[in-house]
Amino acid sequence: MFHRIVLIANGRTPEIRATLAAVTAFLQSRKAAIVLDPLCAELLPGSGLPSAAPEALPADCDLAITVGGDGTMLRAARMLADRDIPLLGVNCGRLGFLADIRADSLATQLSQILDGHFVEDVRFGLRCEVHRDGKTVLESDAFNDVIVQKWNIAKLIELETYVNGLHLHSQRADGMIVSSPTGSTAYALSGGGPILHPSLDALVLVPICPHTLSNRPIVIDGSSRVEIVVGTPEIDHARLSCDGEITCELQTRDRIVITKKPGRVRLIHPPEHDPFGILRAKLHWG
Amino acid sequence: MFHRIVLIANGRTPEIRATLAAVTAFLQSRKAAIVLDPLCAELLPGSGLPSAAPEALPADCDLAITVGGDGTMLRAARMLADRDIPLLGVNCGRLGFLADIRADSLATQLSQILDGHFVEDVRFGLRCEVHRDGKTVLESDAFNDVIVQKWNIAKLIELETYVNGLHLHSQRADGMIVSSPTGSTAYALSGGGPILHPSLDALVLVPICPHTLSNRPIVIDGSSRVEIVVGTPEIDHARLSCDGEITCELQTRDRIVITKKPGRVRLIHPPEHDPFGILRAKLHWG
Amino acid sequence: MFHRIVLIANGRTPEIRATLAAVTAFLQSRKAAIVLDPLCAELLPGSGLPSAAPEALPADCDLAITVGGDGTMLRAARMLADRDIPLLGVNCGRLGFLADIRADSLATQLSQILDGHFVEDVRFGLRCEVHRDGKTVLESDAFNDVIVQKWNIAKLIELETYVNGLHLHSQRADGMIVSSPTGSTAYALSGGGPILHPSLDALVLVPICPHTLSNRPIVIDGSSRVEIVVGTPEIDHARLSCDGEITCELQTRDRIVITKKPGRVRLIHPPEHDPFGILRAKLHWG
Amino acid sequence: MFHRIVLIANGRTPEIRATLAAVTAFLQSRKAAIVLDPLCAELLPGSGLPSAAPEALPADCDLAITVGGDGTMLRAARMLADRDIPLLGVNCGRLGFLADIRADSLATQLSQILDGHFVEDVRFGLRCEVHRDGKTVLESDAFNDVIVQKWNIAKLIELETYVNGLHLHSQRADGMIVSSPTGSTAYALSGGGPILHPSLDALVLVPICPHTLSNRPIVIDGSSRVEIVVGTPEIDHARLSCDGEITCELQTRDRIVITKKPGRVRLIHPPEHDPFGILRAKLHWG
Repeated sequence: MFHRIVLIANGRTPEIRATLAAVTAFLQSRKAAIVLDPLCAELLPGSGLPSAAPEALPADCDLAITVGGDGTMLRAARMLADRDIPLLGVNCGRLGFLADIRADSLATQLSQILDGHFVEDVRFGLRCEVHRDGKTVLESDAFNDVIVQKWNIAKLIELETYVNGLHLHSQRADGMIVSSPTGSTAYALSGGGPILHPSLDALVLVPICPHTLSNRPIVIDGSSRVEIVVGTPEIDHARLSCDGEITCELQTRDRIVITKKPGRVRLIHPPEHDPFGILRAKLHWG
Repeated sequence: MFHRIVLIANGRTPEIRATLAAVTAFLQSRKAAIVLDPLCAELLPGSGLPSAAPEALPADCDLAITVGGDGTMLRAARMLADRDIPLLGVNCGRLGFLADIRADSLATQLSQILDGHFVEDVRFGLRCEVHRDGKTVLESDAFNDVIVQKWNIAKLIELETYVNGLHLHSQRADGMIVSSPTGSTAYALSGGGPILHPSLDALVLVPICPHTLSNRPIVIDGSSRVEIVVGTPEIDHARLSCDGEITCELQTRDRIVITKKPGRVRLIHPPEHDPFGILRAKLHWG
Repeated sequence: MFHRIVLIANGRTPEIRATLAAVTAFLQSRKAAIVLDPLCAELLPGSGLPSAAPEALPADCDLAITVGGDGTMLRAARMLADRDIPLLGVNCGRLGFLADIRADSLATQLSQILDGHFVEDVRFGLRCEVHRDGKTVLESDAFNDVIVQKWNIAKLIELETYVNGLHLHSQRADGMIVSSPTGSTAYALSGGGPILHPSLDALVLVPICPHTLSNRPIVIDGSSRVEIVVGTPEIDHARLSCDGEITCELQTRDRIVITKKPGRVRLIHPPEHDPFGILRAKLHWG
Repeated sequence: MFHRIVLIANGRTPEIRATLAAVTAFLQSRKAAIVLDPLCAELLPGSGLPSAAPEALPADCDLAITVGGDGTMLRAARMLADRDIPLLGVNCGRLGFLADIRADSLATQLSQILDGHFVEDVRFGLRCEVHRDGKTVLESDAFNDVIVQKWNIAKLIELETYVNGLHLHSQRADGMIVSSPTGSTAYALSGGGPILHPSLDALVLVPICPHTLSNRPIVIDGSSRVEIVVGTPEIDHARLSCDGEITCELQTRDRIVITKKPGRVRLIHPPEHDPFGILRAKLHWG
């Protein structure tokens, strides 16, 4: 089913090292071709396996397996964003929303998947641009969320939001989250947003601690163009983050444009994958 | 543009009577063919205009104008659900989410619309069925929301929810709201749900006062099949309502199936219609 | 320390029966004088122990032990409200906010308590009266909460609220919760209310699904006089409940007066009692 | 009633200047002794009135009048915190929660107050200390709230909270608000906290965007000692703010201790003062 598999890690804990070794051993037992990302090569010294940076992966790589948690998978999704390589996540420790292969049932679950028994779960990412004085000063991708938030200040900032060119609102808040369905169970949920079904073609706009109490989360079509304009006068009283990584300090009148990223991200799950079961487990329902 | 217009009212206040008279006078000045629903005929005695019940409207009726508020428009949408007649709402008093023609600018706004300058805003309705012992004991339609709620009891009830046959959760709550985008700014908003853009093809499931605090609203694709199973053992400790009208007492193991209603509802707005402007005005943003 | 102990149950499950037998055996081993409430006498046939209804308890009863859960303890607190008898709760099954003696460590925890090593946790109850046409048509007590809620209707009801004679607000909502600190972790929490520390001398007013989104919970002094006036015109479109038990159908202009009940309720806990630990366990914090 | 009145401003807008001149003229017409704070002296050049910094006010000053909004009043409350001088707020523009004398009815409302017809509204402030390596590295006061919040980072921070030495919880969140009743209608409300009646002797702890959804606001006795321990390892990933002013960068294991400030703050209102009326107006109830 899958011919060449790249392994990706994002940490150096003993659990990651052990799980990575187990994944590698299993794949070798199945005669799979393996490529290691630089960190995996460091974690498996003497493995004799080829290593490649994400941008230099062999063209025939057709599966990426991440070892870590949801964060590792988010990072891999951003790294492989321009390649249509499906992603499969092994979690070391607790169940993830995305990384749902358990280290303790690796062999069974990976066997099924390599035998072609799996579920494909298609997600989309976000693209954001910062426009300043008529120029695009930053382009960045996110998989969970793009956030404009207050910075270096303990007071609310002013933001104007437009959807497809129409003024939605001007607000004073700690910030504004633009989240994909994938991100709706991450920070957006802490901010009071709804859960979006992973397959929904929609974005959710979640104001963070808005001054106006009726300023509720809004769900819009996934193909919408969202623009957030910074109204706060001082420089660097707002910053942009993508998936929790800070990417840019913002100035007054900066215009952050967020759209769906072209292309798709394919997640691979075991055949018994149940997104609602993951919600129930992660959110302690029932 | 429109050839035969039916007028629909839903109340007998002096404002409704006066607005109805003004709408009629204006339409007559424009030589429009008018049909009155039975209540309008009662409110305009001696008008000489033909009257017809909704189910007996002439086949060439191609516009319905409601005089009242959003409730009148909801009722008209349900009455005309099987006819593809567009709806236009004149509000008597405060701005509605749906009925956005103001009585004090009737002539201007209706003129534009009759001249073909308008915005068409397509919504969808909900269909619900109650299945009991293998039989369908009730079929009903809603435009805003279908709600299963506790009844005759001051304690939480037990509900199981399924989406496309998959178990979402079992919960103890005051009830469960299944709302269309149109209903998302009505009761679902009071229950803590997000706002869905009117054009979004989605449903939102909003638990009412759930015992489990992480039981948050969930937005799913508009083509989903939602099933809610009543778990509470006593008869009539739960009821079903559609758009706030009680339709059915429920028993243990009753299965309420909610889907999008086939067909569409077309709302007609003045050309300057701005759904975000209505949100800002109704929710006191800014 | 304690001379005569009354045992109170509120259910007939095998767990309750077994736990009750274990409590009785332990107390007999400690030579404690025991009185059974009528249900306990039924559950322990042939025990030879004296039985008495709550209103006929011997004057020297100085401790009540409930076997069940928080609901059993609430009921006992209401029954013994006019006697200053401390209460101790054995839970059969999961940890309660109030009933925190575990069946599996009965002997250890009861020993400590009978030896005088315990924590006393003083709570207060609520008194409510319904005033109609100048007469008091109902008086009732609650320990958790007094709730005025919609009934026989699927639409919001209208309520006016006064605090110490001052108009707080007029609202449309599903209802209004007036909760003691004890009740703040019960239904009021599902309604969006804050947690009140058990020892706080305060009440919290929590609107249920209010139409106005800024209608947030309000915490007021425990000695306040709260009045809720029913504005909905139809009879029996609102009902009053105390601790989840329906007590009264309501009419337009009924005035529900809620005050702190004179006296106190003393809960007895093991010496290691930690109210925050119970919160962490019950609410899955961390 | 009042013998020597200090005037305090906090801005240089034309409205503030005009209102200040009107207040001064009115007080002079009433033969009141006036002292200007340095900014007021600058705004009223050539007035001939004595000026003094807050710390050098004459001992017989027995009233402070602020001209501005709630922020001006908060600042004055902190400046005069160690003097028991009552405060009266004239608002320039929109109604404040604290500053409720309207510029357009100055003469009437001030007349009543100078004639002894007023309501005294007693509030308390907060004191916070930062303990590091056994030393107190900062002491600061607040009137609304003390906040520990994330800084220089787009991810949640870790905080442990203790109340009277007992561990309440360890959480991952954007921060934690400790608010007085006065602050409960400010930032704490945006964070999802309840409203506390102004006279309540309580504090509310409001987690900001907590990762654990059941991590709800908690109301505790006003005499509690709250300690928040910073768990995030990097320096300056958390900061302390008092009333929205940044006071201190924080390090791992810093212990922020928050208690009620000794003394009181007396606000003076017109006799018809109605705190619920202000809530209704400010929060658009009804």
